[in-house]
Amino acid sequence: MEQMLSLVDQNKERYINELRDLIAIPSVSSQKNHDTDIRRCAEWVANHMIAIGMQKAQVFETPGHPIVYSEWLGAPGKPTVLLYGHYDVQPVDPVNLWSSPPFELSLRGENMYARGTADDKGQIFIHFKAIEAYVRNGGRLPVNVKMIIEGEEEVGSPNLATFVADHKELLKSDLVLISDSSMFAKGVPSMKYGLRGLAYMEIELTGPNRDLHSGSFGGSVHNPIQALTEIISSLHDKNGKITIPGFYHDVLALTKAERTAFKKLPHNDKRYAKELGVKELYGEKGFSTLERLWARPTLECNGIWGGYTGEGAKTVLPSKAFAKISMRLVPNQSSAKIAKLFEKHIKKIAPKTVEVKVSTHHGGEPVVTPLDSPGVQAAIAALEKGFGKKPLYQREGGSIPIVVQFKKILGLDTVLLGFGLPDENAHAPDEHLNIDNFFGGIRTSIHFFNELPRFWKGKK
Amino acid sequence: MEQMLSLVDQNKERYINELRDLIAIPSVSSQKNHDTDIRRCAEWVANHMIAIGMQKAQVFETPGHPIVYSEWLGAPGKPTVLLYGHYDVQPVDPVNLWSSPPFELSLRGENMYARGTADDKGQIFIHFKAIEAYVRNGGRLPVNVKMIIEGEEEVGSPNLATFVADHKELLKSDLVLISDSSMFAKGVPSMKYGLRGLAYMEIELTGPNRDLHSGSFGGSVHNPIQALTEIISSLHDKNGKITIPGFYHDVLALTKAERTAFKKLPHNDKRYAKELGVKELYGEKGFSTLERLWARPTLECNGIWGGYTGEGAKTVLPSKAFAKISMRLVPNQSSAKIAKLFEKHIKKIAPKTVEVKVSTHHGGEPVVTPLDSPGVQAAIAALEKGFGKKPLYQREGGSIPIVVQFKKILGLDTVLLGFGLPDENAHAPDEHLNIDNFFGGIRTSIHFFNELPRFWKGKK
Repeated sequence: MEQMLSLVDQNKERYINELRDLIAIPSVSSQKNHDTDIRRCAEWVANHMIAIGMQKAQVFETPGHPIVYSEWLGAPGKPTVLLYGHYDVQPVDPVNLWSSPPFELSLRGENMYARGTADDKGQIFIHFKAIEAYVRNGGRLPVNVKMIIEGEEEVGSPNLATFVADHKELLKSDLVLISDSSMFAKGVPSMKYGLRGLAYMEIELTGPNRDLHSGSFGGSVHNPIQALTEIISSLHDKNGKITIPGFYHDVLALTKAERTAFKKLPHNDKRYAKELGVKELYGEKGFSTLERLWARPTLECNGIWGGYTGEGAKTVLPSKAFAKISMRLVPNQSSAKIAKLFEKHIKKIAPKTVEVKVSTHHGGEPVVTPLDSPGVQAAIAALEKGFGKKPLYQREGGSIPIVVQFKKILGLDTVLLGFGLPDENAHAPDEHLNIDNFFGGIRTSIHFFNELPRFWKGKK
Repeated sequence: MEQMLSLVDQNKERYINELRDLIAIPSVSSQKNHDTDIRRCAEWVANHMIAIGMQKAQVFETPGHPIVYSEWLGAPGKPTVLLYGHYDVQPVDPVNLWSSPPFELSLRGENMYARGTADDKGQIFIHFKAIEAYVRNGGRLPVNVKMIIEGEEEVGSPNLATFVADHKELLKSDLVLISDSSMFAKGVPSMKYGLRGLAYMEIELTGPNRDLHSGSFGGSVHNPIQALTEIISSLHDKNGKITIPGFYHDVLALTKAERTAFKKLPHNDKRYAKELGVKELYGEKGFSTLERLWARPTLECNGIWGGYTGEGAKTVLPSKAFAKISMRLVPNQSSAKIAKLFEKHIKKIAPKTVEVKVSTHHGGEPVVTPLDSPGVQAAIAALEKGFGKKPLYQREGGSIPIVVQFKKILGLDTVLLGFGLPDENAHAPDEHLNIDNFFGGIRTSIHFFNELPRFWKGKK
């Protein structure tokens, strides 16, 4: 172990230079003119996998951009880790806001700057170098490793689920490892063990059968915009609780240990409010901000529209009003069940003066990887050794659909080992990755592979 | 009187043919390519005024389309009527939906069809022919008459108020007469004696200082859309009353006579609801539909928007949400005062979690011409004689800004003598005017000029 870690220290410059080559390929998945770059990048990744000592690497075609698969299966009887990441990147516009060319790795201060450093080339490269430290020069990994590195994450992974479903046997593993997120804050290594789910709905209210003149008709019919505001405003009570009957029924309560763990995170409500520019925060009474963000379900109106929305004034009493409403879900809520409860409730409370239509856009299940699962335990031990500091526990308010897919299709829990930081401009100009986190990440990955078999024993 | 009325009977065909000439000029004020038609129409009107026996007619230039002024002042000591109307018309698109060419007068069944028949060429022509019956061949009118017939009504009369203000002495009169509206229903001559006013406002709510991801931030801040729905939904109580403190303070209560008069109108809630396609009507409890429409102030949300309003789903927690809200006012509410009350109330009830901005778009005062005023009394007597039926009383839910301007600038009450019907497609294909109403209108106008001095005596 010591030998491997000192190897990392000795090769820092080489690592950076190799990453520079990967970064230099402008693999922007959303822009057609980068299609050849995407392919070149997939091939670079496959070649690099062999170079670091993987036994096999293959570029799989999809209807979109290719998926790179690789494996090292030289540890029979040991757990198999499925590493997921992506080699595609976001567009770089507006280019003039970058301090250095977006596809040239630039080390300034404590960061390395370039498109893809944090999201996600830099983070997959962390694991490449950890694996290399084990395998190159005839060494062995303490676990089996499979990888799928895709090229369409930034466009919503349209072909990933089909690929995974079509290659269940090939991808058979014991857990998924993803490094495509961030830790809580600089110097605060943290373990993200839960994600919220989603039920995204739309309401359409119809009042009169045509747009009316608000002078000639105002006072005789229920304005569908007004009816919509009455419906939406009623979905939260004065304590910020959601009023849909049964909404909280399946919610897994936070454990005392989790609440204690969240309190240890360096969060400050005042600073948080100031950063967002609001005088006061808002949310469900009885829970801290982080609890509300990560472990409590919420309901947000993502969009509303109706009537005249242009410049100036138009005296219309509109026929229709619309709203997009999504609910963030936590274990053990079910997206389909919540969508049904929502629809039933809206139809029940809608006044007879309007017609209501409720539709479902899409959903996703919440996930929590148990804190006492071997993957999470190994990750915690590895983070502590990699960063010299006990990691803290956190969840995430958003969803990562891929995590849900891996659970659904392969039945696998995911360990999220994020080495980014929350303010690294992942989709903006001057994207960067903290250099200490990059090398701390490599050390953590080395430790993770080393720790996993120990925690796995007996749990399997 | 009998002689004049029989003159009308004898000249029906000539009247129609003359109107045909006026209709044939495509005086569309909103379309630049009709500018020469507009001018030609103004000149036609001025020439026709002289032809019917007016003492003077003049085409006044404005920064937009010309205003035609005319006068007959041969009845010293008698009241002076200021007749207002407009010679411009709406566009005719979509032309293919017309059953006959839009600028060719076509008599079919009980109607005459063409653009401008109801709005407003046909209606000003009614008064032209009444005046002609008196004045041509050396006769005299029982009152003095001034006219302003403008060419920009269909584009919001941008130059009328300035013209009126600049020609106060020229336009000095005792009352305004306008025929640019409709009676309650076919066979139901009615006297429209009141219009609602308007205060049109806009609310802008700002929550967080940028659009946020509703997964990562949902549960921590007050969504401005939600806050907006809470504000708007609170503006009506469960009885449909507006909750702004002081809102009803200046409202002139309906008299018993008015409520009785409204009840006589052939209105049916069930039929009205069916025609609008709603299962139930809505409004302030304790008032009939017509009372709510005409004599009670209302508050309507004319537009609302915020967040993502496109196809599909976007998980945004928006920074801002907006609403356009207008209030219809009744005597003696003041538009400026109501705007102030609204702003004060919104600012008071807006939660501290958001910032609120309230702005005023525009306003207009409500007007009621007293039922016992000589102009209204003369119009009632004239309608009864002209249509052989006691007219009913009604008000109008919308505003006619010109009426407010005449009151404000010249201090004059307006008599609204509408000879149209509610479903005559004024701004749509197959615009038409009922032929009986056209001739009934001419008879009514003749009687109006005859009756007015009698009611005026002693009131002046």
